[in-house]
Amino acid sequence: MLLQSQLFTKTRKESPSDEVAKNARLLIRAGFVHKEVAGVYSLLPLGFRVIEKINKIIREEMNAIGGQEVYLSVLQNPDLWKRTDRWAGEADEIWFRTQLKGGGELGLGFTHEEALTNIMRDHISSYKDLPKYAYQIQTKFRNEARAKSGVLRGREFLMKDLYSFCKTREEQDAFYELVQEAYMKIFTRIGLGDRTYLTFASGGVFSKYSHEFQTLCDTGEDIIFVDEEKRIAVNKEVLNDEVLADLGLSRDTLVKKTAVETGNIFSLGTRFSEGLGLLFRDEKGEQHPVIMGSYGFGPTRVMGVIAEVYGDEKGLSWPATVAPFDAHIVSLEKEGESDVSRRVEELVIKLESEGFDILYDDRNLHAGEKFADSDLIGIPVRIVISSKNVGTDLFEVKLRTENDAKMLSYQELVSLLKR
Amino acid sequence: MLLQSQLFTKTRKESPSDEVAKNARLLIRAGFVHKEVAGVYSLLPLGFRVIEKINKIIREEMNAIGGQEVYLSVLQNPDLWKRTDRWAGEADEIWFRTQLKGGGELGLGFTHEEALTNIMRDHISSYKDLPKYAYQIQTKFRNEARAKSGVLRGREFLMKDLYSFCKTREEQDAFYELVQEAYMKIFTRIGLGDRTYLTFASGGVFSKYSHEFQTLCDTGEDIIFVDEEKRIAVNKEVLNDEVLADLGLSRDTLVKKTAVETGNIFSLGTRFSEGLGLLFRDEKGEQHPVIMGSYGFGPTRVMGVIAEVYGDEKGLSWPATVAPFDAHIVSLEKEGESDVSRRVEELVIKLESEGFDILYDDRNLHAGEKFADSDLIGIPVRIVISSKNVGTDLFEVKLRTENDAKMLSYQELVSLLKR
Repeated sequence: MLLQSQLFTKTRKESPSDEVAKNARLLIRAGFVHKEVAGVYSLLPLGFRVIEKINKIIREEMNAIGGQEVYLSVLQNPDLWKRTDRWAGEADEIWFRTQLKGGGELGLGFTHEEALTNIMRDHISSYKDLPKYAYQIQTKFRNEARAKSGVLRGREFLMKDLYSFCKTREEQDAFYELVQEAYMKIFTRIGLGDRTYLTFASGGVFSKYSHEFQTLCDTGEDIIFVDEEKRIAVNKEVLNDEVLADLGLSRDTLVKKTAVETGNIFSLGTRFSEGLGLLFRDEKGEQHPVIMGSYGFGPTRVMGVIAEVYGDEKGLSWPATVAPFDAHIVSLEKEGESDVSRRVEELVIKLESEGFDILYDDRNLHAGEKFADSDLIGIPVRIVISSKNVGTDLFEVKLRTENDAKMLSYQELVSLLKR
Repeated sequence: MLLQSQLFTKTRKESPSDEVAKNARLLIRAGFVHKEVAGVYSLLPLGFRVIEKINKIIREEMNAIGGQEVYLSVLQNPDLWKRTDRWAGEADEIWFRTQLKGGGELGLGFTHEEALTNIMRDHISSYKDLPKYAYQIQTKFRNEARAKSGVLRGREFLMKDLYSFCKTREEQDAFYELVQEAYMKIFTRIGLGDRTYLTFASGGVFSKYSHEFQTLCDTGEDIIFVDEEKRIAVNKEVLNDEVLADLGLSRDTLVKKTAVETGNIFSLGTRFSEGLGLLFRDEKGEQHPVIMGSYGFGPTRVMGVIAEVYGDEKGLSWPATVAPFDAHIVSLEKEGESDVSRRVEELVIKLESEGFDILYDDRNLHAGEKFADSDLIGIPVRIVISSKNVGTDLFEVKLRTENDAKMLSYQELVSLLKR
């Protein structure tokens, strides 16, 4: 339980004037993030808790399909990236670069194919060493010219990146499907399952398509065409008759939607293993480059999408699984009403023993201010304790997504929190 | 449980030729870390697990004294640091700097006083808002001219940094003592309590002394003088008659030791709150700068110290609380001995149900190679399952810190793991 009087952040009445994006305006007003410079946000306690919950779900699903967690360095050695043609040229637009005191340039990683492929050279040499899957949840950097979308497109942001190392294309295809399923489980668990579509996008040298996970969001940068019945979509970029035939889709059933790319998965083929010399010997002793895949997911971006799609004029509104707290207890104790705070304390002890995280608004403020803050912070379940209900067995419970409170027994309240 | 055949890292027989520090030589040989460039290391799965266990202990102790976790940005706005005179001058030696695409310079944070003080300006204005405590566990950067100490002194490293914001010096002093106690709990829990001393070091404008936590380690950079009975030490830098009189110490009882600074805590006074305008109004409405303290702790450095002080000619040796796994099951199954793997599986299920993490060496290698790897990785408890003991109720158990195995019942094994 955290006493709201102890929480170091305060809410703001006004949105920050230097932010145009809804997600940043709400997240800053509610005290979840702080803007350092455009596109660079720090996580404050409430925002940190949301990201930790998202990351925990990601970890569970990545571990379940055999992912092993690592944490690669931010500082990157240009030698590796020169060998794959991603230090200069097109990539030049993306890098933040820095200089070592003693001379020599380093980059701040915007992805980690090169770094991990190079590491794997120490650990993979035979078909017996394959397949292997490694992932991380880590800070990435992109030197965006403009950054106006809040946490949806940052210059510094969290990324979950998983990489697969396989012997054959078939082996990779099987894992690729596992990742698709794992991603849909993640989106469902974080409350975005209904509005997230596996989306066919442009492939590359090594596969006809890549796959994006696009989450419907009015302020998104992407246009997709959704087949609601098949629960798949096609990115506008690749929409043509050949693609439709490939996927068995008809223009008649496709609906145009605006979305944010919250995940993307694609085959890298042998681009990086050939470039960096990650080879394995097969059963006959012949050498081949390892076949690689890459699977990205953006935790900070997803926090921003949730703020965009569930936020309303009153503030944020979190799905239960990623809310900073499970319940927000608001006490309306007036002076001398010690039975109110006693009832809160009893309830907190019981709910905590069942494993729920509680934010307890113990501040000496008017009810209106407390409710406004509660709506702004957006914890899904609010429990109001006041002299009106202190003598009863029932609790006054209001969901963030509903307008009216209802009176629930303790068991009904627990069932609601466990949903 | 992780099958060792699935763990993507392999051990090396030889130490890396480009590393002189014992910690880096062992951690790289055993597959815990990978060196990207000098002073920059990536965490591989085993190293990641160690750091996660250290971080979990840190979080528990920081939360217990009222710390609220945040995650501040790496990219830092020079404007703030210019106002506290830490952008150029002396600090110039430390910064990694980078350029925004559209023009403008940013720095990579080596500490976060300026960033957090600035954030607190949004949330602290009255004595009622104080005290507050915020911490993070996050990647820091220092542009070291040389980096030869492995993970003991990196150019990129993890840091836990806690900051306190108080009304009065007395309020800060009380918290400062709580942090001292919390730090000693952390050192005790991670297995370094016996060799870590609260050490008096040079203060600054705002206090006579700062306090370091110095952990005895032959390869350390610091010289301290220890009073074993009082369990305190004095840094060589400040050892003089006045200090000895202050602390009630005598030269006769002090013993000179080599140590590594694993933590340090100090009063910042009003240096940053004055510089950046973090003020509060007292009960009379008068404005004062907030009194601040700073409390650092190095998780990656601590991993390195543990490697230095407990590692031996055979490899690493982890205290149980921070070991990557609780137990290492080594099966010596020969062809046709399916009863051996059956016994392993039964044991794994039972131990996992009690909450223990298991690494299971299922690889088809000679016993000698498996034992050598097991010693190198350094999990504290090894359980050998072979046809020799498969028909009995007893388990062959060898501690990493002892030479001989012993035969234990299941209950004795569990007690040992719970120690």
